[in-house]
Amino acid sequence: MAMSIVARRLSTGSTTWRHGNWLRSFSTAFREERDTFGPISVPADKLWGAQTQRSLQNFDIGGDRERMPEPIIRAFGILKKCTAMVNMKYGLDPSIGKAIMQAAQEVAEGKLSDHFPLVVWQTGSGTQSNMNANEVIANRASEILGHKRGEKFVHPNDHVNRSQSSNDTFPTVMHIAAAMEINSRLIPKLKTLHSTLHSKSVEFKDIVKIGRTHTQDATPLTLGQEFSGYTTQVKYGIDRVMCTLPHIYQLAQGGTAVGTGLNTKKRVCKASRVKILFSRFDVKIASTVAEETNLPFVTAENKFEALAAHDAFVETSGALNTVATSLMKIANDIRLLGSGPRCGLGELILPENEPGSSIMPGKVNPTQC
Amino acid sequence: MAMSIVARRLSTGSTTWRHGNWLRSFSTAFREERDTFGPISVPADKLWGAQTQRSLQNFDIGGDRERMPEPIIRAFGILKKCTAMVNMKYGLDPSIGKAIMQAAQEVAEGKLSDHFPLVVWQTGSGTQSNMNANEVIANRASEILGHKRGEKFVHPNDHVNRSQSSNDTFPTVMHIAAAMEINSRLIPKLKTLHSTLHSKSVEFKDIVKIGRTHTQDATPLTLGQEFSGYTTQVKYGIDRVMCTLPHIYQLAQGGTAVGTGLNTKKRVCKASRVKILFSRFDVKIASTVAEETNLPFVTAENKFEALAAHDAFVETSGALNTVATSLMKIANDIRLLGSGPRCGLGELILPENEPGSSIMPGKVNPTQC
Amino acid sequence: MAMSIVARRLSTGSTTWRHGNWLRSFSTAFREERDTFGPISVPADKLWGAQTQRSLQNFDIGGDRERMPEPIIRAFGILKKCTAMVNMKYGLDPSIGKAIMQAAQEVAEGKLSDHFPLVVWQTGSGTQSNMNANEVIANRASEILGHKRGEKFVHPNDHVNRSQSSNDTFPTVMHIAAAMEINSRLIPKLKTLHSTLHSKSVEFKDIVKIGRTHTQDATPLTLGQEFSGYTTQVKYGIDRVMCTLPHIYQLAQGGTAVGTGLNTKKRVCKASRVKILFSRFDVKIASTVAEETNLPFVTAENKFEALAAHDAFVETSGALNTVATSLMKIANDIRLLGSGPRCGLGELILPENEPGSSIMPGKVNPTQC
Amino acid sequence: MAMSIVARRLSTGSTTWRHGNWLRSFSTAFREERDTFGPISVPADKLWGAQTQRSLQNFDIGGDRERMPEPIIRAFGILKKCTAMVNMKYGLDPSIGKAIMQAAQEVAEGKLSDHFPLVVWQTGSGTQSNMNANEVIANRASEILGHKRGEKFVHPNDHVNRSQSSNDTFPTVMHIAAAMEINSRLIPKLKTLHSTLHSKSVEFKDIVKIGRTHTQDATPLTLGQEFSGYTTQVKYGIDRVMCTLPHIYQLAQGGTAVGTGLNTKKRVCKASRVKILFSRFDVKIASTVAEETNLPFVTAENKFEALAAHDAFVETSGALNTVATSLMKIANDIRLLGSGPRCGLGELILPENEPGSSIMPGKVNPTQC
Repeated sequence: MAMSIVARRLSTGSTTWRHGNWLRSFSTAFREERDTFGPISVPADKLWGAQTQRSLQNFDIGGDRERMPEPIIRAFGILKKCTAMVNMKYGLDPSIGKAIMQAAQEVAEGKLSDHFPLVVWQTGSGTQSNMNANEVIANRASEILGHKRGEKFVHPNDHVNRSQSSNDTFPTVMHIAAAMEINSRLIPKLKTLHSTLHSKSVEFKDIVKIGRTHTQDATPLTLGQEFSGYTTQVKYGIDRVMCTLPHIYQLAQGGTAVGTGLNTKKRVCKASRVKILFSRFDVKIASTVAEETNLPFVTAENKFEALAAHDAFVETSGALNTVATSLMKIANDIRLLGSGPRCGLGELILPENEPGSSIMPGKVNPTQC
Repeated sequence: MAMSIVARRLSTGSTTWRHGNWLRSFSTAFREERDTFGPISVPADKLWGAQTQRSLQNFDIGGDRERMPEPIIRAFGILKKCTAMVNMKYGLDPSIGKAIMQAAQEVAEGKLSDHFPLVVWQTGSGTQSNMNANEVIANRASEILGHKRGEKFVHPNDHVNRSQSSNDTFPTVMHIAAAMEINSRLIPKLKTLHSTLHSKSVEFKDIVKIGRTHTQDATPLTLGQEFSGYTTQVKYGIDRVMCTLPHIYQLAQGGTAVGTGLNTKKRVCKASRVKILFSRFDVKIASTVAEETNLPFVTAENKFEALAAHDAFVETSGALNTVATSLMKIANDIRLLGSGPRCGLGELILPENEPGSSIMPGKVNPTQC
Repeated sequence: MAMSIVARRLSTGSTTWRHGNWLRSFSTAFREERDTFGPISVPADKLWGAQTQRSLQNFDIGGDRERMPEPIIRAFGILKKCTAMVNMKYGLDPSIGKAIMQAAQEVAEGKLSDHFPLVVWQTGSGTQSNMNANEVIANRASEILGHKRGEKFVHPNDHVNRSQSSNDTFPTVMHIAAAMEINSRLIPKLKTLHSTLHSKSVEFKDIVKIGRTHTQDATPLTLGQEFSGYTTQVKYGIDRVMCTLPHIYQLAQGGTAVGTGLNTKKRVCKASRVKILFSRFDVKIASTVAEETNLPFVTAENKFEALAAHDAFVETSGALNTVATSLMKIANDIRLLGSGPRCGLGELILPENEPGSSIMPGKVNPTQC
Repeated sequence: MAMSIVARRLSTGSTTWRHGNWLRSFSTAFREERDTFGPISVPADKLWGAQTQRSLQNFDIGGDRERMPEPIIRAFGILKKCTAMVNMKYGLDPSIGKAIMQAAQEVAEGKLSDHFPLVVWQTGSGTQSNMNANEVIANRASEILGHKRGEKFVHPNDHVNRSQSSNDTFPTVMHIAAAMEINSRLIPKLKTLHSTLHSKSVEFKDIVKIGRTHTQDATPLTLGQEFSGYTTQVKYGIDRVMCTLPHIYQLAQGGTAVGTGLNTKKRVCKASRVKILFSRFDVKIASTVAEETNLPFVTAENKFEALAAHDAFVETSGALNTVATSLMKIANDIRLLGSGPRCGLGELILPENEPGSSIMPGKVNPTQC
């Protein structure tokens, strides 16, 4: 039997049907942008370029609810500002560098978020969102310098993405975004909850009530003691999340394409057969991001791990899951203790803040928010 | 020991901080709306009323990404149109009924979607979204009849929600929305995929290639045979999902508050001690929805199950999970067979539709969409 | 840069440490068995052969709790009996065939379960458990015919595994085992539960009680109505599981190594370039298994799907998950309604069948089993 | 409408059917044991008592595979030895205390594991396994002191369970068991894996190979660099698990029934209205367990949290999940790099340690174990 292994082309026939949909949602004026695939029409009032446009057309799914999250977009702003700053030390034209920094700062502040239309459905590396950031910043920086969109006076790849790859920028922005969200939003709110629960546990310290195991009556305890348990759960939850941050603070930036640091500035070590050595480009980026964010970012100890695995997020996710489990337990307890008012446990009176029924006029279902 | 079980008030102190946030995102003109909790300011250009407004302020979380999905909103439009139609047979003033039907039709067509601002974070019953629908339709119907918003000429509870409860409307709209999405979007796309895979299996029927088990070389087969396996997976997937729809087609409407059908039109059976008997209000609603959607909805055989459990969704979710598992297997196979171009398996040539790297100029990562 | 892609040997150094452990748990008398890797010592009182022994030594993990489940072992007995029966029609020596059938019947009845020591940790195809079955049946059949263990008068591959591959036997026994467990154990128990709940719903039909939504008091209903909801959930659960069985009833047997049916008896079609065509060996096996088990097994319509995907189990698992969800809801309700006796809802008195505390003498925590 | 909320008895009718099953698996000689429910027959050759026997009959499900895990049983041995030691300081008769310690030591060493027949299906508190330990140790200690089984010369509740509740013993043994398994089994094995991967990364440091992203060819790197990534993943995995142990080292013992420390030895604080204060019984137990196990156990800072929540396990589970995710990534990479031998990537030659097919004579599917 003649066996031939023949590669076969999987083509989709026609892809023209895809274009109609997104065109309708944008302005009718267009300009031409180009990439290695050739020219493509882009809405004239948008800063993005050819690669963003292709992804937009190729992945016409998910809509608003599945856009790349804003904290990722802002983190790209922070990162691109920092890489421009470091690249200027390695020969990037200062006027271009400063324009990139200014444009990136606008991204970091959320001012250009309307120019990041892509959904999370992309290649696994996030190349398209990295290019979206490069293109928006390049076009905006070009404008700052008096040039037109699409002219590539500031170039998305050669200038904005200099010494970078999607393979290291995307893990880096995920780490920046996660660290910032946790530090600036989650932890402060958990601390507020902790202190509220703590003051309830003090307020309730003399109220003796039934204890329960398996929903069956057991020996008594105080309501304050019950709330002290909740307080401790939240306190530990804060510790748990913080405890996982050291791995999140490790940044992949400087690994470039597969972790070798190819294309970054480096010292060449003659003794090496392979000649792939890290410069300290990576260290400089991490310290610049740390200064910019006021968070203790460092460069990842091993770039191959930092690029190929995302274990740090699995770890933090486990801690967040523990916090969620704690909160679910506390909320269920409170809901049950507040059941009634006449035919339930009725041990807690929960605040009434909205009508609870569309058919039973006086009914209130306590909703804590 | 004196043991006293004392109910304690869990108050949040001040809730005024919440108001600032949402106010900024809306217009500055307001009108007053009222519910059992009293008056509250509502943006003048919005059709919603007091209960929607309270939920908006109480649950200032999640944002755009966590809004009640559009298919649920549209299903409320369908349901409220149908309940008005049936209520007119039981004494609802025809002019009010017709205005409700017209307003509800606008909701069903998505024309009023901007007036549904609530997120999925509500009481478990979805009371707030039901009231959102009632309030928007009542205000719109009032306008249709020449009255002002907030005057309640058409009343959200007494007219629009007549003979209904959140406890039966919300399960009902979930069923309507799921059935419509599956029938009008999922199944047609799976059928397209099925026929594409089938034609590939025919096209590839004479290409002999290596078979593999555990990624190790095994005996040969044809590429067409491999694709016939994928084709069959998708075909079975369609069957699997369709097979779960009969339970989705059962509507809870008519059960009202806890499944007894309280407040609906009913025959009184003298022999009954409890006097809670079903009229055929429920049957009429289901058949009206069936006509409106052209889908075989029926009234749920047991309203207590239909209200208290949502097993039908768990069942359908299991079938959808099977489809997802199939597609993941197929996609992983194709990705692996298309690995290369030089150092991979290279058995398939995948379409190139966008640049694949921000650092390696010629690289393409095939992305099928 | 000279780039050479060099395959590297990943050796584990010494593997001798593994042997100590399992030897201790078995008898001290050994006989020699052989496979393509050469000779190996096997406990003299066991019927298994060389490949089982290797797997036992290579995968010294998991212990008793992770042994291949008994229903899988028994299903191998059923399958090997049926394949012997069909193989006899295609030229297998009848005396050998009958001895295989007798030995396989003993496996099917669980009489030889002690000779199946392997854990679930094997190659993904389950080759080792298939060979375990082949080896045990071959040795037992040899003994029946007056020959010694290890002599291979009845050969595990050539006779017992004739026209089969692990790739088709293992999916087949998974299907047989699942179908039998569901039909003979799960469904009858669900039916008993259904009829018990139904009689409770009748018994409780006149007891009016409070209804609750969100644990808050709502409108009344009867306890019988609540139980009628549970009854319906279980009834639908039975339907749901049964509804997924048609795909479980499809057997992969006859696909052999990668689905082509290689090595099975077949008609050769001259017009075919590839000459891989299905005989109806597969149909005969399925009908024989159907007769043997009294369940409506058929041959899988597409063997490539049947071997490469296990979607049928994902589908059934989704239905079983729905049943589990129903039962969890019912159990939680009953537990909550039975909370007390003094400081709980106290609506149900649950049977007391064991002491509920090691420290509180009179405490009982109802445990339903 | 007369509405009466009436508690209803949920009886199971007859439970006699359950007895047949377990009786067959045990010896035919029986003795009588007693608990608060009255007398019950227990196999004469077993050390367990009445409550274990009831659970065995009430929960005739799961079988061998679902028995309470051995590490939990052994941890009960450790705990009961330590509580006897501490109780002797608070007045427990020294001869009884010493006999309990000796019996508990036998449990800790696994010598009495055959006397722990219960499955994991019990009340949520694990009362039955706690009583199983109390009963076995009491009977064994009685024998040591020359008395008969069932006589309760050493009493399971009054002596062995003194100052304890299932509510604090069970969380305590879960913590002891988890800490011991992680320290004595998991971490050493991860360290071995780490050092093996590290030496491979050194051995492979000069082998240049293709890098891949999305399975597509990318820039080169060394095989040693790839393995250095794996090495780092495992190193971090060890850190991750160790990082969660501080919460596991917190023991609930001393909280008794609901966390108040009721029934333990305590100083009474007159200023307290409720008079429920912790003695340092809890501290002494924790330090005794720490000495016994050579692990840094301490008493839980808040017993209400320690009893009512099991967040510590959720946290550790998250870290273990991260390790599992790392190992899955490494294993999948190695499997893919070792694909072939002719039609795969073929970059690694994996050890051949068993035949890989029942139908293809020369086939080997590398299985690493």
